[in-house]
Amino acid sequence: MERQIYLDNSATTRVDDRVVELMKKAFLSDYGNPSSMHVMGINSNAYAEKAGRQLAASLGCEPKNFIYTSCGTESDNLAIIGGALANSRTGKHIITTAVEHPAVTESVKRLTEYGFETSYLSVDESGVIDLDELKSALRPDTCLVSIMAVNNETGAVMPISDAGRLIKENNKKTLFHVDAVQGFGHLALRPASMNIDLLSISGHKIHGPKGVGALYIAKGVKVKSLMVGGGQQENLRSGTLNIPGIAGLGLAAELATKDIEGKRKKLFALKSRLARGVAGLGDIHINGPEINEGAPHILNVSFAGVRAEVLLHALEEKGIFVSSGSACAAHHPGVSAALKAMGLPDKYLTSAIRFSMSEWTTEEEIDYTVSSLGELLPILRRFR
Amino acid sequence: MERQIYLDNSATTRVDDRVVELMKKAFLSDYGNPSSMHVMGINSNAYAEKAGRQLAASLGCEPKNFIYTSCGTESDNLAIIGGALANSRTGKHIITTAVEHPAVTESVKRLTEYGFETSYLSVDESGVIDLDELKSALRPDTCLVSIMAVNNETGAVMPISDAGRLIKENNKKTLFHVDAVQGFGHLALRPASMNIDLLSISGHKIHGPKGVGALYIAKGVKVKSLMVGGGQQENLRSGTLNIPGIAGLGLAAELATKDIEGKRKKLFALKSRLARGVAGLGDIHINGPEINEGAPHILNVSFAGVRAEVLLHALEEKGIFVSSGSACAAHHPGVSAALKAMGLPDKYLTSAIRFSMSEWTTEEEIDYTVSSLGELLPILRRFR
Repeated sequence: MERQIYLDNSATTRVDDRVVELMKKAFLSDYGNPSSMHVMGINSNAYAEKAGRQLAASLGCEPKNFIYTSCGTESDNLAIIGGALANSRTGKHIITTAVEHPAVTESVKRLTEYGFETSYLSVDESGVIDLDELKSALRPDTCLVSIMAVNNETGAVMPISDAGRLIKENNKKTLFHVDAVQGFGHLALRPASMNIDLLSISGHKIHGPKGVGALYIAKGVKVKSLMVGGGQQENLRSGTLNIPGIAGLGLAAELATKDIEGKRKKLFALKSRLARGVAGLGDIHINGPEINEGAPHILNVSFAGVRAEVLLHALEEKGIFVSSGSACAAHHPGVSAALKAMGLPDKYLTSAIRFSMSEWTTEEEIDYTVSSLGELLPILRRFR
Repeated sequence: MERQIYLDNSATTRVDDRVVELMKKAFLSDYGNPSSMHVMGINSNAYAEKAGRQLAASLGCEPKNFIYTSCGTESDNLAIIGGALANSRTGKHIITTAVEHPAVTESVKRLTEYGFETSYLSVDESGVIDLDELKSALRPDTCLVSIMAVNNETGAVMPISDAGRLIKENNKKTLFHVDAVQGFGHLALRPASMNIDLLSISGHKIHGPKGVGALYIAKGVKVKSLMVGGGQQENLRSGTLNIPGIAGLGLAAELATKDIEGKRKKLFALKSRLARGVAGLGDIHINGPEINEGAPHILNVSFAGVRAEVLLHALEEKGIFVSSGSACAAHHPGVSAALKAMGLPDKYLTSAIRFSMSEWTTEEEIDYTVSSLGELLPILRRFR
């Protein structure tokens, strides 16, 4: 393969070299157990403390707001299952959306075993929830609302700030969880002013390592631990701290958020370039909000007349890596629930490709992708 | 500090350089999401497949027997909570020992919320359970028995093989879980012939990375998932696979088990050398079984007349890193439950130091440790 154009950054990202260097130090030199009483434990723990400060700066909060987990999925499970169980005195009603990541929807389903019931908010044709629907769905016994910041498939940006306000106007005790796995680093998120109680992030979506995530927990919010043992992390998440991973997450978070505006501008320019490029490629449809209203890094496009998997593999032969649907649902290509919820016709449902960029993506890569699509589509459409 | 003598390998280990090199490749080159349909996903997944083969070889089983987790604690939680919940039709009685790691005892405690009851097996003065006591404790409704392979504080080796036989003689449906976090790589473990259904291992105890563990699950054994989402790992453990960590664990497992006999011989020689050295240091007591009956890498010694923490820090000033009690219980030095269960008198309970070696420990390091103890003890005992 001559070149590699990686446009699947919403599935996972290459780790930043600086992050790898830092982790290497924690693997080989400062490898103590952070719970050890000697200086090697203290040195190791200092990595976690630094990561806490980096994460706190990235969200405008305090280091003590974070619990480290093994991934975004664990953060979502801990927030939703742990949050609802600890807050069930408020009631046993949950609200979420029709287009959440499975880590959220499956956590909500798991809660039905404990007698919780769920309302699902629909989305409009651009993939965004309706605040009036949220308002009507809120009840006095709503103990938790979970809404993602950015949809992983379409890049739809949810009205988190307004949702937070409505939720707390209805009942201050209702917990607001935001799955920010796709939004973190691409939107300026400020949990306190947005009324967010719980917010999930993941290392490997922001040029950090796989195998580490974090959960922001607002001061005073109670969560029931899901993993028990040595009592690490204030008894909320036992297990030896993954110091190299946590250090990597901290640095990646700092790098991802230090110039969000600059990064957004760059990514929106790339996204617009790609959108303009595909506009001339026959019967296509951009799935999601208007370019500038969605997330800067995701463009989901349907190419009617070609099956998504076929186009994915044809692009792959040109060295271009994209996704059909979401890679997060393991080996279940099928039809996307999020796109279905947006009411797309069949011809677009089966032909949707997600292009997801990072700040390392170049204009030249976008142009090559557009020209490759231009070459491939007439052939694939003819021989389908 | 002039030198570093790391004798705290039961708390955590330095990562092997070869493991770091492999992980670096997965961070920087083969960084795809293993669930992605394109070749970068396939290449990434190949790391997990290789790790599965390495783990299978290390325990004499099949790659499909493994679920990857984020640590030994998660493996224990999944085995015990997930195993008992899935097997509660057999009954709601659990058996474990008085000296398990908190990841096991806390998991068992969590099950009491679901109506399970627990019997705790005592240990003798060498820290080992009594098989007759196990036999009497087994009931028709025992759904799960959890016994560690090697005690993390004393190095006591439990009679796993005999226990497995007794458990299955009583009721074939009773699940047998073994926390092998300290035993793996130091004992030859063969789950099938030992009647083990579930076996926990951890990366960072065997020169692999923190943040990754595995759970062996025997064919046909049902476990309820604790973390839900995208359905990865046969729906048993959702979340994007931590490919670099899994690859690191696989290689570390291969390296840790490729010559267990040779490693044991080397470690037993070091342990005997240390035991001989401390024998002349006044009122001391070796906590645990006879040297050759315990694990090869752990020697727990009480030095009457000195508080363990004081000796730990005095050794630290000489560049020697050891543990008082276990580092696994976060920042709770206190008195060890395991040593208490062995009936040690107070003077030994408060003065116990764990020396834990790795195959990289040298004779010269042991000699330096012994001579440092010889220097320090008379002073510390005088001024206590």
